[in-house]
Amino acid sequence: MPENKFYASVITIGDELLIGQTIDTNSAWMAQELNKIGVWVKRRVAVGDSREDIWQALDEESKESEIVLITGGLGPTADDITKPLLCDYFGGKMIVNEKVLEHVKNIFIRLKRPIIDRNLKQAEVPDVCEVLMNMRGTAPGMLFRKGKKIYISLPGVPYEMKGIFTDHVLSLIQKEFQLPYIIHRTLLTAGAGESFIAERIQNWEAKLPEHIKLAYLPNYGLVRLRLTAHGLEKESLEKEVNELFDELQEQVKDIMVVNEDIPLEQALGNLLIEKNKSLATAESCSGGYIAHLLTSVPGSSMYFKGTVVAYSYDAKETILGVNHETLEIKGAVSEETITEMFDGLMRITTAEYGIATSGVMGPTGGTDDKPVGTVWIAYGSREKMIAKRLHFRFERMKNIELTAVNALLLLLQFIKSEEVK
Amino acid sequence: MPENKFYASVITIGDELLIGQTIDTNSAWMAQELNKIGVWVKRRVAVGDSREDIWQALDEESKESEIVLITGGLGPTADDITKPLLCDYFGGKMIVNEKVLEHVKNIFIRLKRPIIDRNLKQAEVPDVCEVLMNMRGTAPGMLFRKGKKIYISLPGVPYEMKGIFTDHVLSLIQKEFQLPYIIHRTLLTAGAGESFIAERIQNWEAKLPEHIKLAYLPNYGLVRLRLTAHGLEKESLEKEVNELFDELQEQVKDIMVVNEDIPLEQALGNLLIEKNKSLATAESCSGGYIAHLLTSVPGSSMYFKGTVVAYSYDAKETILGVNHETLEIKGAVSEETITEMFDGLMRITTAEYGIATSGVMGPTGGTDDKPVGTVWIAYGSREKMIAKRLHFRFERMKNIELTAVNALLLLLQFIKSEEVK
Repeated sequence: MPENKFYASVITIGDELLIGQTIDTNSAWMAQELNKIGVWVKRRVAVGDSREDIWQALDEESKESEIVLITGGLGPTADDITKPLLCDYFGGKMIVNEKVLEHVKNIFIRLKRPIIDRNLKQAEVPDVCEVLMNMRGTAPGMLFRKGKKIYISLPGVPYEMKGIFTDHVLSLIQKEFQLPYIIHRTLLTAGAGESFIAERIQNWEAKLPEHIKLAYLPNYGLVRLRLTAHGLEKESLEKEVNELFDELQEQVKDIMVVNEDIPLEQALGNLLIEKNKSLATAESCSGGYIAHLLTSVPGSSMYFKGTVVAYSYDAKETILGVNHETLEIKGAVSEETITEMFDGLMRITTAEYGIATSGVMGPTGGTDDKPVGTVWIAYGSREKMIAKRLHFRFERMKNIELTAVNALLLLLQFIKSEEVK
Repeated sequence: MPENKFYASVITIGDELLIGQTIDTNSAWMAQELNKIGVWVKRRVAVGDSREDIWQALDEESKESEIVLITGGLGPTADDITKPLLCDYFGGKMIVNEKVLEHVKNIFIRLKRPIIDRNLKQAEVPDVCEVLMNMRGTAPGMLFRKGKKIYISLPGVPYEMKGIFTDHVLSLIQKEFQLPYIIHRTLLTAGAGESFIAERIQNWEAKLPEHIKLAYLPNYGLVRLRLTAHGLEKESLEKEVNELFDELQEQVKDIMVVNEDIPLEQALGNLLIEKNKSLATAESCSGGYIAHLLTSVPGSSMYFKGTVVAYSYDAKETILGVNHETLEIKGAVSEETITEMFDGLMRITTAEYGIATSGVMGPTGGTDDKPVGTVWIAYGSREKMIAKRLHFRFERMKNIELTAVNALLLLLQFIKSEEVK
């Protein structure tokens, strides 16, 4: 284990991952949880529903890591081949686990659904495994051992996988192994490119010790900077990383948005809580995406009043009170319309701060003077509103996301700038 | 190549993938595009920013596949080590590519940003590669050859990766290789579990030929059924799959929602276009997520009027006209409130159909009679509204998603049931 790292591999199983029908979010979640207890994911491998490919992946990852986590392939239907394979791989035979059987029966009784053989089969497990009970579904988790290594098979349904992981896997790994510490500290910057930041901090970065790494994570025109440290002594490692993180903050303070690894919408929410103020949005082109980001943060009802998604002329007129003439003469994507949308929003809500958006997200709807990607964003308070024209050059979804990120960022910076005065 | 399959491997590079900071959406997108031209992704491997691990992944995937696609690790900052490694791996030396250099310079001139050495380095490539121009950024794509195999390195930023992939990679692969055909046909069902469906169609499924596979893809309480076929003769393969797909549809017609691989929001949108009708939503607990799903479909302005996200009591009262007494006496999560929200929505918009949601998404805010996960959904037309109470048992984000999926599904089924009369 170089660099005091303790390694895990993640194998995800399922053709749906290889034909692009499903995006794998399980691996990212597991990696985060493993990191917290000092386990580093060395490799992630996705293979299809093929006996040969799964077997090979098990062989390979056994060489790489102390812990092999396997998700997927445990459902009740015929395309699932993982359980019998694991039984063969670890040299066992299938038996009925009475505890799982009772659990499966109880679920069907509770759901008042008829139970069929296929469901009862979920209670069959290799006799060489330890069962990890799945309180959120019928497919049990399974723990296998080979030499000093452990293998954990979990269902692919994220909600069920997370349940077993939290209930059993984390404590099991911590009990089984002596783990090092991994610490991440992340900050978010806006307004400068990756290479510009790298240039500015290059002397500092060059002096980082071996066991502490800096990563640049650009996304949506923002750049996250992440320090990652490994070590055996928690306290001294924390002290070392915190000092370096302070130095880093000092060097980028003019472009730093927040010094935590939280999404922008949460940083804005925290600022609003701190000031005991509230927010509402009037969205046209962003189509409710800003509202969705804001409300995905638990507790957002403390500061978020609501949104009008005015996607049509009539909704802009009836709900927000935009003048019909403004829309006819200036168009929906104009400084005049966005200003009236903002004013209307402030009139019909009690929020102290507001955001309004209107633009052309594509793929169609662009004109010569308002090509696809043109966006007007209005933001501010009851005292002061600013309207800004931006232009994005991407596909529809990315344009929507960029509109939202920029609107949230502009308002956050606006509120911070009020403090300075 | 068993089963007439032509294989590719995808290697994604970056520590951010292994610590769970970034969810890999590139692989899924590439897999879909490759599938369309007859290439099957056999394995996907994610490795960190480690020279040794990347090298090993290249060695391994070379054994598995004819084409190895590599994304990530090409940015301008110090944590990127991929380009020099590729140079060594394929035995070349780094040279400046004049075309890329000019392109990078032009980008900085256009952006009116100062250009630094680090940016100019983007124009350095191994002399053994063919450059694939990146019209959306500074990091070029690179094509390498070893024996009969090809290796393509692409930047990790999805927008840039997709640009190079579409501009160069697809046509390049099609020109280079004789490819088989892969055909997918997918339908979406609601109201029956995976095992129940499997039980119903088991005789039919057992008779499927070797080269045609059925997969069950459960998600959000819905189940997608996907037929995948491989073959060398496009026409006969299409005919065969279509016939089987017709048989499958016949067997699940009572639970089938749509017989295409499109999201539910698009299925609803298509139905509205067909009927020339429009939709609006009044969202409390779903927080604009339904609006976001609807507006992520291009052309949704044809049938989507708008949304009121009434997250606070005052927004429910002022914008939707819900009675203060109703909220005080019955609470926001009640049949009475949801009915008034729906009525208010119909009053302030011109939409023919509506959806209203109100619930407790968690993690806090639950009570004994309205625990976390309790949701009221109202849906229907100006003539007829139905209010329904549902209960989900998940985390906040999943509860929000389930609220949205169920609301869209209920309205879609409502509109279809109108036809029958």
